[in-house]
Amino acid sequence: MKSGILEHNSIQKIEIVRVKDHLSFSCTDEVSVEEPLEIRISYEADGHKIVKNISVTMRTPGNDEELATGFLFTEGIISEQSQIKQIYYQKEVCSRNSGNIITVELAEGYIPQLMNADRNFYTTSSCGVCGKGSIESIKTVSTFRNDERPPQSISVETIYQLAEKLRTFQNNFSATGGIHASGLFDGKGNLLALREDVGRHNALDKLIGNTLLSGQLPLREHILVLSGRASFELIQKAAMAGIDVVAAIGAPSSLAVDLAKEFDITLLGFLRDNRFNIYHTSSQIQILMQ
Amino acid sequence: MKSGILEHNSIQKIEIVRVKDHLSFSCTDEVSVEEPLEIRISYEADGHKIVKNISVTMRTPGNDEELATGFLFTEGIISEQSQIKQIYYQKEVCSRNSGNIITVELAEGYIPQLMNADRNFYTTSSCGVCGKGSIESIKTVSTFRNDERPPQSISVETIYQLAEKLRTFQNNFSATGGIHASGLFDGKGNLLALREDVGRHNALDKLIGNTLLSGQLPLREHILVLSGRASFELIQKAAMAGIDVVAAIGAPSSLAVDLAKEFDITLLGFLRDNRFNIYHTSSQIQILMQ
Repeated sequence: MKSGILEHNSIQKIEIVRVKDHLSFSCTDEVSVEEPLEIRISYEADGHKIVKNISVTMRTPGNDEELATGFLFTEGIISEQSQIKQIYYQKEVCSRNSGNIITVELAEGYIPQLMNADRNFYTTSSCGVCGKGSIESIKTVSTFRNDERPPQSISVETIYQLAEKLRTFQNNFSATGGIHASGLFDGKGNLLALREDVGRHNALDKLIGNTLLSGQLPLREHILVLSGRASFELIQKAAMAGIDVVAAIGAPSSLAVDLAKEFDITLLGFLRDNRFNIYHTSSQIQILMQ
Repeated sequence: MKSGILEHNSIQKIEIVRVKDHLSFSCTDEVSVEEPLEIRISYEADGHKIVKNISVTMRTPGNDEELATGFLFTEGIISEQSQIKQIYYQKEVCSRNSGNIITVELAEGYIPQLMNADRNFYTTSSCGVCGKGSIESIKTVSTFRNDERPPQSISVETIYQLAEKLRTFQNNFSATGGIHASGLFDGKGNLLALREDVGRHNALDKLIGNTLLSGQLPLREHILVLSGRASFELIQKAAMAGIDVVAAIGAPSSLAVDLAKEFDITLLGFLRDNRFNIYHTSSQIQILMQ
């Protein structure tokens, strides 16, 4: 299985014209690659092999196995590594798309939770289409809720350093200025893993897929740092992975805050320049001001 | 039909804790509201009334009719205003979600193009799942391609002012720092309409829906300004609306550049501080340096 932050084909060189004031000049620049990825699962039921198309997402190539695994996990279709037998790219007639169809073959005897496979499963609760219903639905598929664990302390200095560290590591990996990152840190502020993608949900799915494949879930002792804003979808994925602390460089949405409160996830926003906002503090987490 | 930039329930006041250096204090802050919206269509076929759920999207409430209209148009399900009879909210049992289900009732005799209704219709061409296939698929559903029109000139000064104007108008409408905007300008740089949403695809769908409902399509003489990055999805929507010039404050992706070239859309990125990059210049558009 491939690993690493980003691969060779995640950045593309193109010819552009730069304009500044009233001058223009031609030069070579780099853009983040965006290509579709179709995620399929295959499994056996009643003696028949079944292949299902689960999703097509526009993503930056690289860490596709992690992306597929993380997507299936955060959508509630699989819940642990042992349910995966192997992951492989589909060989198709058109050479250009050979890296754009990935199949997760499930372990013998495991029947996937396809009632969760509707992309918007969390909006189809009995309450109907509303934020409260969306949150209730996640409760029914989340694995790591309400487990016992010791409380944890994090200093503000550690938190301030997270933003800087994410930016430093991201700059090392991406020169395009146009890509989202999800970074996983331990409680001392050490970077454990970073994943990038043009889609921020994909960056987080890659990160969570990485931790599932390496047997690290749930991520109770960890801090998730998001390079952009915190939407409902990202907090939903964090909740599925059992993450206690989410720190976003950007703003959260109302539903992200509601979900963080319901799942008792510490949610920080606008983390930059030695400041941040606290939208919810988990009973498990103490933020030390000194 | 409702209009206006954002409505009362698009911003929510919440209690937060601000942390700066080693001090913290409680205060009231505002976050952008995020709530699911289910988009349905209803139409008659063979004497039967058919109601179909087309999509559930996480959006900021406000301009929902425009959002539904723009989504159906950019997905190729409808192509003109006359195909819409009326748009209404569904009344459901749960009071909280009464504003979260919207139905577009189609005009008598119009059968929608539901072969396009697959959310990822542009990735299911005969070529399979690849960027080239995605672009080819859009060609088959785009209405305004290859129409004759006079060439247009835009000065760099006009372009420089777009970013500042978008920010100024956006600040007037949103205090949350966590919302995307799509702004429509004329060739002289005058703001014609601005729409905001936690989802940037929704902001653009609202804007395009607004122009469809007011009979302004195609938007040949206009400039679309995006508050963030330019992904494939956003350029796809711009192409569907016949937009010639897209200027993004952030970076484009590789597939966004490819699509802009294929549809001959002028694509500018990193528009800020009297500078920008040109990724493609339409044969219809001349950028004047003085």
